[in-house]
Amino acid sequence: MRAVDIIMNKRAGKELTRQELEFLIGGYAAGNIPDYQVSAWAMAVFFMGMTPIETAALTRVMLESGSKIDLSGIQGPFVDKHSTGGVGDKTSLILAPIAASLGIRVPMMSGRALGHTGGTLDKLESIPGYRTSLPADEFKNIIAADGFAMTGQTKDIVPADRLLYALRDVSATVESIPLITASILSKKAAEGTKGLVLDVKFGSGAFMKESAEGKKLARSLVDTGAALGLSVIALLTDMNEPLGNMVGNFLEVEESLDCLEGKGPADLMEVTLELAGRMAFLGGKAKDSAEGRRVCEKTLAGGQPRELFLRNIKSQGGNPDEVLRIRGNYRSPVSAEVRAGSNGYTSGIDAWKIGHACVQLGVGRNRTEDKVSPVAGVQFFAKSGAKVTAGDLLMKVWAADREGLQAALPQLNDAVAYSQTMPAKRNLILEEIS
Amino acid sequence: MRAVDIIMNKRAGKELTRQELEFLIGGYAAGNIPDYQVSAWAMAVFFMGMTPIETAALTRVMLESGSKIDLSGIQGPFVDKHSTGGVGDKTSLILAPIAASLGIRVPMMSGRALGHTGGTLDKLESIPGYRTSLPADEFKNIIAADGFAMTGQTKDIVPADRLLYALRDVSATVESIPLITASILSKKAAEGTKGLVLDVKFGSGAFMKESAEGKKLARSLVDTGAALGLSVIALLTDMNEPLGNMVGNFLEVEESLDCLEGKGPADLMEVTLELAGRMAFLGGKAKDSAEGRRVCEKTLAGGQPRELFLRNIKSQGGNPDEVLRIRGNYRSPVSAEVRAGSNGYTSGIDAWKIGHACVQLGVGRNRTEDKVSPVAGVQFFAKSGAKVTAGDLLMKVWAADREGLQAALPQLNDAVAYSQTMPAKRNLILEEIS
Repeated sequence: MRAVDIIMNKRAGKELTRQELEFLIGGYAAGNIPDYQVSAWAMAVFFMGMTPIETAALTRVMLESGSKIDLSGIQGPFVDKHSTGGVGDKTSLILAPIAASLGIRVPMMSGRALGHTGGTLDKLESIPGYRTSLPADEFKNIIAADGFAMTGQTKDIVPADRLLYALRDVSATVESIPLITASILSKKAAEGTKGLVLDVKFGSGAFMKESAEGKKLARSLVDTGAALGLSVIALLTDMNEPLGNMVGNFLEVEESLDCLEGKGPADLMEVTLELAGRMAFLGGKAKDSAEGRRVCEKTLAGGQPRELFLRNIKSQGGNPDEVLRIRGNYRSPVSAEVRAGSNGYTSGIDAWKIGHACVQLGVGRNRTEDKVSPVAGVQFFAKSGAKVTAGDLLMKVWAADREGLQAALPQLNDAVAYSQTMPAKRNLILEEIS
Repeated sequence: MRAVDIIMNKRAGKELTRQELEFLIGGYAAGNIPDYQVSAWAMAVFFMGMTPIETAALTRVMLESGSKIDLSGIQGPFVDKHSTGGVGDKTSLILAPIAASLGIRVPMMSGRALGHTGGTLDKLESIPGYRTSLPADEFKNIIAADGFAMTGQTKDIVPADRLLYALRDVSATVESIPLITASILSKKAAEGTKGLVLDVKFGSGAFMKESAEGKKLARSLVDTGAALGLSVIALLTDMNEPLGNMVGNFLEVEESLDCLEGKGPADLMEVTLELAGRMAFLGGKAKDSAEGRRVCEKTLAGGQPRELFLRNIKSQGGNPDEVLRIRGNYRSPVSAEVRAGSNGYTSGIDAWKIGHACVQLGVGRNRTEDKVSPVAGVQFFAKSGAKVTAGDLLMKVWAADREGLQAALPQLNDAVAYSQTMPAKRNLILEEIS
């Protein structure tokens, strides 16, 4: 077998076999295949795609490049949730304790902020003392004790994905549905979950700008997941505007706590409960998603999810009492306000522009090695559909430093669109793919 | 400027600018851009192509990655010929002295055998003592003295092409018309020629299997050549069957000498004279190609091209008397015969199969580092259209070693097709593109 022939087959649109993918990508992870062959192959995949069988084979090859989390001895059901990434998307922090309170086990391995999108690990690390690099046995112990745990991908989990993603990032081969599918599902399969609810986002603040592209990715994820023995449901959700009223690291922890206390904003609660309801269904706690949602609303009202959230903070090294104490005050001293420039309605808050401004503020990062600030971010006082008068407070803004604030403010102002008539209400959840 | 953005633009089908290509490919030659980005770009070019302007810009960037041959002080006209490669293709050895005898200067930089195709340098090096690595000043001096010189590409001539070709070879990105165009023309522009006759071959023994593909390449070469200020004429010629009756290194030197003595086989003479006639036209020695051919036939009959051929052997380190002495006897002792297996007509001798068998015999090479034998090869006694009786001698075969002979013989037998009726005569020259 020769790598060049495998690339040539893909170039010609042929379906590669498990053996060929093992030779090429398994070989790459093992250091036997050079990166210049893998990047050429990835570009050929970008143009020619992969069949569902082929995508599943690639996912298996990637999965087997490393070790899997061993959840044996813990009683399931295991259900996780994954989002393709957005701005202000903190649903994981809310739905994990909701699902755990129903007896579902959530082994959640998350990622970091990159570009305009936020990252669950960065949000959690804004909690003083919170550790997101859990050794496998501690991850397992916390799941057993609290029902969920949140950790980063360790070096021995799907090393092929880490290598391949870094290569795709510099070779303009990120935007390939089968490669995205294999990347997501190999990590989810490695963490030991059996059920998976996917939040596939589309819109300016999402990776996929068009809903049609998002739908294709959702279909690929659901079908490939099935081929791997996972039960997958995907929701196609709107990410044209930030989710909720807070974008930032500790700001989003606070907003998650608000949600767990019944004080969450409507858009964020809607998406969270639709996702959580499907986790309840996949975990066998409801006969369908609609009943799942009702079950989640009930457990939320009972207060147990909030207790589990605080308990998890303690389990992972933070101090829940301190979180409650600094809540509302843990902010950068470098701050500003954004006020309405027109009378009328805010017709849209562009998530992409907000996300990029937040990188300037210190919330996110442009390069994986950049540091983020726990205390930077934006709080919205008017989202789309709000009636405003020129001069009304639209956003409070906190920045890691003054330069970042100066750079972000014009972008934040520019993110707001106005109209003279009340804009139509956005449909947050476009479709379920299962 | 970032390489990843340039790759993304190409992926989207955009025309890259000279500056972008300089950044990416000039940067690659200078060691600043990693191979994994260039191979991904090359695959994007494979799928999305390049415009003529873009191909010319790439050619210039490659040309300027190294130094050019300085032919100043030598009186032109300078006209060269280049073939896209075939089996038994020794026209360069014949037409260079023909053109030189007309007062045309031929600064010929050639390549080596690879895969099933032969290489001019390997053929010349079969002449004991013949040197094909001429320093630039010696190359120039021999052109001034003999009218032509034959050398290999030196390290400082188009280093970007050497790097890029090696990368394309292992990343399945060889078969791209703009990349082939830039590779050929950058080297031809660097050697200082002004006129260029191209032999673009199609068929089983050629790089392009279909004439339509060959025609596209010819069109790209002619148009890009014009953008670079070169006068280019291309002939689309049939390479389904080996050219002439000899395939081998010294065997082809001998057959070239036969041609220069008026004893050459008809197919080889036809292609050679059509190409040489166009060199005469481009060099201003005839008013059109038809007159050019007549001029070439006349000079050939006068015997001067044969004298120049022998003089070049002496100029480049060989001994013409020795060549004439060993002629007909300089053969490997490991030999065999291939005889007809049927009565009827030979309807085809597959050039691709012959070429691959010749690699086994030691004529060619599969890897650039393989050595070739001067004394291996095949002599044909019946080409397509010959009436044969079972048992008639079809080929004499010489091999570098017995293993190679054993491996080649079934392939050589398999290369011959028979028919009961006289096959139609092949049209060797399909079209002129200019």
